[in-house]
Amino acid sequence: MKAVGICGSDIHYLKHGRIADYVVKDKMVIGHESSGTVVEIGPGVSTLRPGDDVALEPGIPCWYNRSSREGRYNLDPGVQFFATPPVHGSLAEFVDHPADFCFRLPAGLTHEQGAFAEPLSVGVHACRRGSVSPGKTVAVLGAGPIGLVALMCAKAFGADTVAITDIKADNLALARQLGADTALHLDPAAEPAQVAESVRNALPGGPDIIIDCAGFESTLQTAATAINAGGTVVTVGTGCEHARLPVTRMTIREVTLAGSFRYANTYPLALQLMASKRVDVLPLITHRFGFSEADVRQGFDTAARAVETKAIKARACIG
Amino acid sequence: MKAVGICGSDIHYLKHGRIADYVVKDKMVIGHESSGTVVEIGPGVSTLRPGDDVALEPGIPCWYNRSSREGRYNLDPGVQFFATPPVHGSLAEFVDHPADFCFRLPAGLTHEQGAFAEPLSVGVHACRRGSVSPGKTVAVLGAGPIGLVALMCAKAFGADTVAITDIKADNLALARQLGADTALHLDPAAEPAQVAESVRNALPGGPDIIIDCAGFESTLQTAATAINAGGTVVTVGTGCEHARLPVTRMTIREVTLAGSFRYANTYPLALQLMASKRVDVLPLITHRFGFSEADVRQGFDTAARAVETKAIKARACIG
Amino acid sequence: MKAVGICGSDIHYLKHGRIADYVVKDKMVIGHESSGTVVEIGPGVSTLRPGDDVALEPGIPCWYNRSSREGRYNLDPGVQFFATPPVHGSLAEFVDHPADFCFRLPAGLTHEQGAFAEPLSVGVHACRRGSVSPGKTVAVLGAGPIGLVALMCAKAFGADTVAITDIKADNLALARQLGADTALHLDPAAEPAQVAESVRNALPGGPDIIIDCAGFESTLQTAATAINAGGTVVTVGTGCEHARLPVTRMTIREVTLAGSFRYANTYPLALQLMASKRVDVLPLITHRFGFSEADVRQGFDTAARAVETKAIKARACIG
Amino acid sequence: MKAVGICGSDIHYLKHGRIADYVVKDKMVIGHESSGTVVEIGPGVSTLRPGDDVALEPGIPCWYNRSSREGRYNLDPGVQFFATPPVHGSLAEFVDHPADFCFRLPAGLTHEQGAFAEPLSVGVHACRRGSVSPGKTVAVLGAGPIGLVALMCAKAFGADTVAITDIKADNLALARQLGADTALHLDPAAEPAQVAESVRNALPGGPDIIIDCAGFESTLQTAATAINAGGTVVTVGTGCEHARLPVTRMTIREVTLAGSFRYANTYPLALQLMASKRVDVLPLITHRFGFSEADVRQGFDTAARAVETKAIKARACIG
Repeated sequence: MKAVGICGSDIHYLKHGRIADYVVKDKMVIGHESSGTVVEIGPGVSTLRPGDDVALEPGIPCWYNRSSREGRYNLDPGVQFFATPPVHGSLAEFVDHPADFCFRLPAGLTHEQGAFAEPLSVGVHACRRGSVSPGKTVAVLGAGPIGLVALMCAKAFGADTVAITDIKADNLALARQLGADTALHLDPAAEPAQVAESVRNALPGGPDIIIDCAGFESTLQTAATAINAGGTVVTVGTGCEHARLPVTRMTIREVTLAGSFRYANTYPLALQLMASKRVDVLPLITHRFGFSEADVRQGFDTAARAVETKAIKARACIG
Repeated sequence: MKAVGICGSDIHYLKHGRIADYVVKDKMVIGHESSGTVVEIGPGVSTLRPGDDVALEPGIPCWYNRSSREGRYNLDPGVQFFATPPVHGSLAEFVDHPADFCFRLPAGLTHEQGAFAEPLSVGVHACRRGSVSPGKTVAVLGAGPIGLVALMCAKAFGADTVAITDIKADNLALARQLGADTALHLDPAAEPAQVAESVRNALPGGPDIIIDCAGFESTLQTAATAINAGGTVVTVGTGCEHARLPVTRMTIREVTLAGSFRYANTYPLALQLMASKRVDVLPLITHRFGFSEADVRQGFDTAARAVETKAIKARACIG
Repeated sequence: MKAVGICGSDIHYLKHGRIADYVVKDKMVIGHESSGTVVEIGPGVSTLRPGDDVALEPGIPCWYNRSSREGRYNLDPGVQFFATPPVHGSLAEFVDHPADFCFRLPAGLTHEQGAFAEPLSVGVHACRRGSVSPGKTVAVLGAGPIGLVALMCAKAFGADTVAITDIKADNLALARQLGADTALHLDPAAEPAQVAESVRNALPGGPDIIIDCAGFESTLQTAATAINAGGTVVTVGTGCEHARLPVTRMTIREVTLAGSFRYANTYPLALQLMASKRVDVLPLITHRFGFSEADVRQGFDTAARAVETKAIKARACIG
Repeated sequence: MKAVGICGSDIHYLKHGRIADYVVKDKMVIGHESSGTVVEIGPGVSTLRPGDDVALEPGIPCWYNRSSREGRYNLDPGVQFFATPPVHGSLAEFVDHPADFCFRLPAGLTHEQGAFAEPLSVGVHACRRGSVSPGKTVAVLGAGPIGLVALMCAKAFGADTVAITDIKADNLALARQLGADTALHLDPAAEPAQVAESVRNALPGGPDIIIDCAGFESTLQTAATAINAGGTVVTVGTGCEHARLPVTRMTIREVTLAGSFRYANTYPLALQLMASKRVDVLPLITHRFGFSEADVRQGFDTAARAVETKAIKARACIG
């Protein structure tokens, strides 16, 4: 391993020992945003050679069920995913990973960019779930790491105009730098109906697609209210378990609410987006640490205190 | 006009004078499920002749906005729809209607079947919104008139297996007669989680598509819980304004929640489904009345007291 | 193995030793339409047990390329397909096959129906490539075994009206029995333009979808000429290598020409279509033979002389 | 009218008096790429005011048929299209045009850009027909005006890599300037198989989508041979009426051949693409003329002799 990003889920497992029904029972290596260099290949591997720099797609489906075979292998119930108990993660010196889920880094990409193919994949998948394309306006709710990659992906998918919202001014400033057409600074006390109005006004004709990267009841209500008739709300964030939604309004306006979970068939594109400079993730990597235990601990601590440290994405890296 | 069906919305306007934001301010003719015989045509009409029997599609879009031009004219904000204030409905001796929204009845269809093209269109549109096709299992929640047409449409669209639920035994008996593979009699006191379990067990592999024709909080929760990962919940019913939904579960299972409102481009198919006998709507027409004022009043009264009268669909008809 | 159907490609390999670039260099077992009974399972197999009756999907993808991962594993260049050199086929007493490509026969299905899941899959896939659904009219060109399954599948997918063409009166009679709305007996000397006119007249509003199961230059020209503006011609047959097509006409009418090759994700549905009696393949099995060498030779001979023997589908079967 | 572009079809009508079945029988005004300033509005028009600068979408559908109602109004058989006999075109001082097919120019756009919304729409529609998106490679065959807009649109739709081919070095130089990743200079004598090989080599993984803007037999053969398995060839050009295609190869590789004719629902996007500078059409306007008869004649002469004059797009403009 050469670079491993630190994700909110890693911190959650570290602090709480569980996420929803996934409980850490034994010691478990965390980390799933990773890239490294091939040191050894198994028999029959023809696509890689020792010395190749690769990004590691963290979830290995079993191909035995309908979802996988129909191309949605992220929904495979038998998937083995880095750092989802009881499967070990990738924050280790060496990991054993199937060759066909190791993607060679295009010329010019660094390992930390390679590791970033993982969160970027989440943005790519969300844009596909929402069918983002030229002729569409997009609002992204939440300007954390996933919101920011969703923003960059929406631009790369050709959206006409992209607005983004958050309550943190710093993140919005970064969003503007990354290409947001409008960055709305929200008052944490504002009502969803009021925020929805601002979101509608921020985009000519209102939002055709909303990508909710927070998943709070308030953001979901904002999205369901602001979205254009016939539009799509993509839910990526999982900030609350249950939310009260204006279902009749959604029905008579034919809103589509589309859950987006992880990704499938995104790694080659995520790497190409960075290699071709359509997406620049470097401004999101605000903190870098070494691979020693002390360094990694500090990295996690920094990421966990994102508000004080103003960390967007921290990553541990050798060298 | 020769036949006009009585819809729940007609009764609602009659009783309450409004539905949501649509308020009846002046005298308004009701009725929108209708067929009749052409008595006169305007200049330039070449597709119809006096004497033609036709079904009348009740909503006339204005074609000036994006939704209409992209094929979703049901979302046209300028649509003029029978019996949606302030537009008059069709329960009248004569109505003036654009020729291109009058569809000639195929050979063998009666006027009461022609009028039924309207509710049948709602079922067709819901199946399209859910992409019902061979290889898919479908659950329909609610066995009222719309649930029953959704059931018949799901079979006509080739669904492998269709289950339907309700609390009324009579309606379920009719559902079985109309082709339901399973008709689940629900205890009104059952919890959504429990009902969801029954729905999952009623279909091999669980439901790929759920069409919620009730739209209560309980049915929506049932649907969101029962649906397969990667599946689609189509909402047709508007039984409650707001509902609390398990949004994280929906996100991580990539559920799609798709609102379905009225219909577009369904009339020719609805008529063909009846003409080819793929769908038989006659068992749903449980009460028939004449066109005199007294008869019509009695018809509305019968439909309004559907529980006692066991009415599924009442219609007024000349002759 | 309990039942193996005889396909035109088997006969072709037997007679000519090759199909296009696939050349038989060593002795090769033929046969790929097959069902049997599990006698032994490998370690880790939990979905099957000895004694289970199963249909065998003949092509095993390697999952290492984009097509497979996106759900189109029929396009996997590394697929191992029964009886495609140098891979052996299934006309043998025992074969070794991955458990996840063995599909348990639903209750009531015989082995010869199980073997028929293979050609039926070709029809299912063609209907999916053409998006056959209610509201569409379909023409099938060619009433051989594949044309007949395409016809049955088009009906099962809900097509409004299905017409079928051939030069053989017997096959057309069978097509009528299987549900064809119109069966057009063609004069072998008729010009494509003339045939196209007949096909257009055979379907109200003309054909929205044409499934060409012959793939001759004449049928392709017929299809390209007869198809509705905005419609889709699905090519399944490969009767000629090159064909001269009216490309400008196809462009200005926005015709889509969609190749259909084998199938992916069809076996469960093919079995369900037979189990639910939406599709009845038995009338297509016109000749049955035992599993002895002499019987099998006779079976191939009968199938090869389809015109004289009036064979639609011959199959070898134990018991 | 303020600006009118000169299109190959205009020249063709001028020289030959017909295109395919469209024959000019009476005097006919030509021109259909146009923008102007509103001088007068009809009763009931609320979206425009005198003085507004607008681009004119040239084809007015009648909305009475299925294609239009389903969103494909370019296939409406009753469409009234500028300069398609017997409908007059727009190369006139004043034209009478429906308000809902007049699109206000976004701030900053000139009339000549407004007129360019027409050819740009052809590129937008072709990209939609081919589902161009991030993760896809695209080859454009032909670097004339339509090929160049298709190139720019493919980039705007997010294609990973776009190659373009032509036999004219000048046009390829311009293509490079406009964003082509590879511009292949073809030898006019090269065989399609050879060109196909070059096209495959020009794009990593080969072309997922090919947009043939020439429509010659040679380019169609190149496209059908070069395209990836599962890929789409979009035909825009109509350089020949019939072409001999490798149909078996296309079938077993599941190639989709998709005709693309004019456009529907593209004008707002075409204007936005220019206003946001995602697409810059100015380098394509190589010759400008006044609106006097002499000027216009010279414009047509220049455009007609495109090879000698190196004209890409000539337009007549007032002021």
